[in-house]
Amino acid sequence: MYTDIEIAQRAKMEPIINVAAKLGLKDEDIELYGRYKCKISIEACNKVKEKGKLILVTAINPTPAGEGKSTVTVGLGDAFSRIGKKSVIALREPSLGPVFGVKGGAAGGGYAQVVPMEDINLHFTGDMHAITTANNLLAAAIDNHIHQGNKLNIDSRRIIFKRVMDMNDRALRNVVVGMGGKVNGFVREDGFMITVASEIMAILCLAKDLNDLKVRMGNILIAYNLNGEPVYAKELEIQGAMALLMKDAIKPNLVQTLENTPALIHGGPFANIAHGCNSIIATKTALGLGDIVVTEAGFGADLGAEKFFDIKCRYGNLKPECVVLVATVRALKHHGGAKKEELNIPSVEKLSMGIQNLEKQIENIKSFGVPVVVAINKFITDSDEEVSYINDFCNKLGVKVSLTEVWEKGGEGGVDLANKVLETIAKEEENFAPIYSEKESIKDKISKIAKTVYGAKGVQYSPAAIKQIGELEKFNMDKFPVCMAKTQYSLSDNQFLLGRPKDFDITVKEVRVSNGAGFIVALTGDIMTMPGLPKVPAANRMDILDDGEIVGLF
Amino acid sequence: MYTDIEIAQRAKMEPIINVAAKLGLKDEDIELYGRYKCKISIEACNKVKEKGKLILVTAINPTPAGEGKSTVTVGLGDAFSRIGKKSVIALREPSLGPVFGVKGGAAGGGYAQVVPMEDINLHFTGDMHAITTANNLLAAAIDNHIHQGNKLNIDSRRIIFKRVMDMNDRALRNVVVGMGGKVNGFVREDGFMITVASEIMAILCLAKDLNDLKVRMGNILIAYNLNGEPVYAKELEIQGAMALLMKDAIKPNLVQTLENTPALIHGGPFANIAHGCNSIIATKTALGLGDIVVTEAGFGADLGAEKFFDIKCRYGNLKPECVVLVATVRALKHHGGAKKEELNIPSVEKLSMGIQNLEKQIENIKSFGVPVVVAINKFITDSDEEVSYINDFCNKLGVKVSLTEVWEKGGEGGVDLANKVLETIAKEEENFAPIYSEKESIKDKISKIAKTVYGAKGVQYSPAAIKQIGELEKFNMDKFPVCMAKTQYSLSDNQFLLGRPKDFDITVKEVRVSNGAGFIVALTGDIMTMPGLPKVPAANRMDILDDGEIVGLF
Repeated sequence: MYTDIEIAQRAKMEPIINVAAKLGLKDEDIELYGRYKCKISIEACNKVKEKGKLILVTAINPTPAGEGKSTVTVGLGDAFSRIGKKSVIALREPSLGPVFGVKGGAAGGGYAQVVPMEDINLHFTGDMHAITTANNLLAAAIDNHIHQGNKLNIDSRRIIFKRVMDMNDRALRNVVVGMGGKVNGFVREDGFMITVASEIMAILCLAKDLNDLKVRMGNILIAYNLNGEPVYAKELEIQGAMALLMKDAIKPNLVQTLENTPALIHGGPFANIAHGCNSIIATKTALGLGDIVVTEAGFGADLGAEKFFDIKCRYGNLKPECVVLVATVRALKHHGGAKKEELNIPSVEKLSMGIQNLEKQIENIKSFGVPVVVAINKFITDSDEEVSYINDFCNKLGVKVSLTEVWEKGGEGGVDLANKVLETIAKEEENFAPIYSEKESIKDKISKIAKTVYGAKGVQYSPAAIKQIGELEKFNMDKFPVCMAKTQYSLSDNQFLLGRPKDFDITVKEVRVSNGAGFIVALTGDIMTMPGLPKVPAANRMDILDDGEIVGLF
Repeated sequence: MYTDIEIAQRAKMEPIINVAAKLGLKDEDIELYGRYKCKISIEACNKVKEKGKLILVTAINPTPAGEGKSTVTVGLGDAFSRIGKKSVIALREPSLGPVFGVKGGAAGGGYAQVVPMEDINLHFTGDMHAITTANNLLAAAIDNHIHQGNKLNIDSRRIIFKRVMDMNDRALRNVVVGMGGKVNGFVREDGFMITVASEIMAILCLAKDLNDLKVRMGNILIAYNLNGEPVYAKELEIQGAMALLMKDAIKPNLVQTLENTPALIHGGPFANIAHGCNSIIATKTALGLGDIVVTEAGFGADLGAEKFFDIKCRYGNLKPECVVLVATVRALKHHGGAKKEELNIPSVEKLSMGIQNLEKQIENIKSFGVPVVVAINKFITDSDEEVSYINDFCNKLGVKVSLTEVWEKGGEGGVDLANKVLETIAKEEENFAPIYSEKESIKDKISKIAKTVYGAKGVQYSPAAIKQIGELEKFNMDKFPVCMAKTQYSLSDNQFLLGRPKDFDITVKEVRVSNGAGFIVALTGDIMTMPGLPKVPAANRMDILDDGEIVGLF
């Protein structure tokens, strides 16, 4: 059996210019980055008319191993191609940090991958680096402004905007900058986040166009002044240079799957302090180029799909036609209380206890008015009885189930799923609407998410959060959608409450605003925005040999 | 009159694929980055046979405004094209930091520029970002190693390898990292340099191929252990991943001038703590593709040309055929004691005092056995008498002088210079040799450079430098060429000693090793490796308009 990278290296890639041509893109519509990657020009993106049907792939609350959401997304896209649809996939860009940390690459898996996977997982077309640079230009401008006289009266104790690096580097989480005397500026506490946690990444993914991107970057709340009033990036007159740095990053990237289905890979914000979806520009472009577009959102449906609907679809005016909810028999047994060593042992009993997680996530999707199909990502240890149990359970809810084998078989393993998605779209009416209005109060918005989606009894607020909400209301930064930062492993804010927890409260510890991106972040726990490297980093096994062969990327 | 960016935007660029084709490069030899930039594959670089003649453009000790070295390099390349030569230019890549700081762009000027200048000055093909990432992966691995048990016994007080960012950010010069408790690692002092100061940049520019790059990166001296012994990067087993990150950065970038002459722009190390030349790989490739190759080195001839000869040519086994020494009438009067406000006033007297700087730099070039031609970069304020004076002075030394007007007229303004270079090559014999053997002692090497090139009486060493030399000898890291870090404004180590100072000593304050790059750095003063932004950064005037027009890059 081949590893992911070995499979990827054996792919028969088409020149990307041919992939683009099949989508109706002409030579002048694209900019090549080597033979197998290109960017689509903004003019070409603006030219297309949205016509495709949008399918979101999401999941139950995952186990730490993940349930194969990206793999199903890629495989489903390939399956649509196989049944004669003009299919386009829209995915997030991987971040370099995790590639060298624990994770290795992030471009699907097995026979459902996007390629060239080495490039996608390394620098790709430089979008991450552009974001890093724009972010750090703004950060440098803040400290420079203070050093050069601080006309804006910035309170150096209340600088919100942090530097970023696309690296897992725990030593940079908390730093002191400006040391060494007068020529080096004023000493202050600071910290680095990983690039994907930058507000600029979230902005890239929500912006309509370059001008909107510039305006939003100018609106970033960077600090408070000594009178306690907000200071925005535009007051430093730096958003023009930042936009200039982002001039190519804003263009969607086109690559292909192992089966030559076109894939737009563009933007990849954090799924906790940001909304965790690929860019609106790429999604809309995909909808203009394809008849059917398969996309995904980070984490389980309670976080990923909720933010996809309430933030991305709201800003992008998108109408999802169907949701594919990925589950594994193993994860459902995990939700039913099976221990790690029991996951391979068939047990309809554990499954029947854990399936409530799936049930709740189905209800969640339906509460947004979108039809749902369940995809069981098949493992060799799944028993027929377990699979039938899920089938029967979902059918009672009026939901179709498909057993997918895309990891092993590529698109062929997803044809049944693709057909069930098409049947569902044809039969069930899409009636999509967000579950709250952004005009409601912050507390009302959070309450609706917590009660409707998580199934919580109520919401508690820390004193700090109450103060922060007051401040956002005072400065008119409260009329944004809410971006919840919560554990992905549970419907609650306690990662150990599996299945479908009941009678729990959500506790909001902190409330921030991403005033440029246009959302309020409600944190229900400590969110790590700069990962660290493990004892033996994935980087240690990576190499490029004399003949150019790349090893150890997975 | 147009600004540089306006001229660049009006350029009639050829598709880079055509520029490449004229050099004999086939489609499979290049990787496009958009329509007007490409990388040349390593296979294609290895295939070509060196046949071209190598011309180095250097200068007298400059004024802070610079003497137009890059502009002459580009203009001379265009001039060679005009007189029917297959001409290729080999330049350094600009760094983003200075672009947003004081300097604006760095791709020649006036009608002697390389294009697309916006891209070249911004992210270009991502080489800088790859270096930043490889550098910071190693830095993260060092702190991670200590955090995870410190098997190598690294002395956290003696970590030499620093993090980098491609930004002018004084707040990062001196930082404390690892704060916030146990999960964030051990607290220690650290600092950031600008990316071009990274040893990895120097390595990229001296490496033969990807494997050599990997070996050299593994040889970087990163720290000393608690027993006082050196610790190298390879002990962290990270050089494979670093090489992987550099797999595209190692390929030379091809662009063109305003007049469509091919230009390889690749690598750009600091000219003080590193050797300040573009990559050996690009220079050798240019020599394989063209009949005549024009390249440059940072700062004046005492620093730039010396390092070009003693470090780059030594490692690359290159034989320069001729040197073009750029001077301006204004700078020579400055060396003769003219004040800033007097520079526009004709004065043969001041000129006659300052011309000794030119005389010494001519002698310096000749001491390496290479013929020299003087190029006067013409200003409107230059008087005929002043120009004749320089002509007569140089002719007495047997050196040809050309008045170049490439800034105003492009290649046409450099045709006379090009012809004089060709005449000189035809007439004078090149007899190139470095001025010292790398096998000599560190002090002997420094002494030869100081006495022969700078005209110093002797060399003084600080107690710290003496200790450091002893350490390098002890650990067998002393048999490398020496890279001098010295003010560019004077032949001495005192920037205020203009003209041709005599009876001075050079003081070496600090000696370091770049064990991966393969040179010893001797610092004669405080060298700034992380610039800061000025009161009004160039970034503040930059913008990209709704129609995509870029403004304020110069």
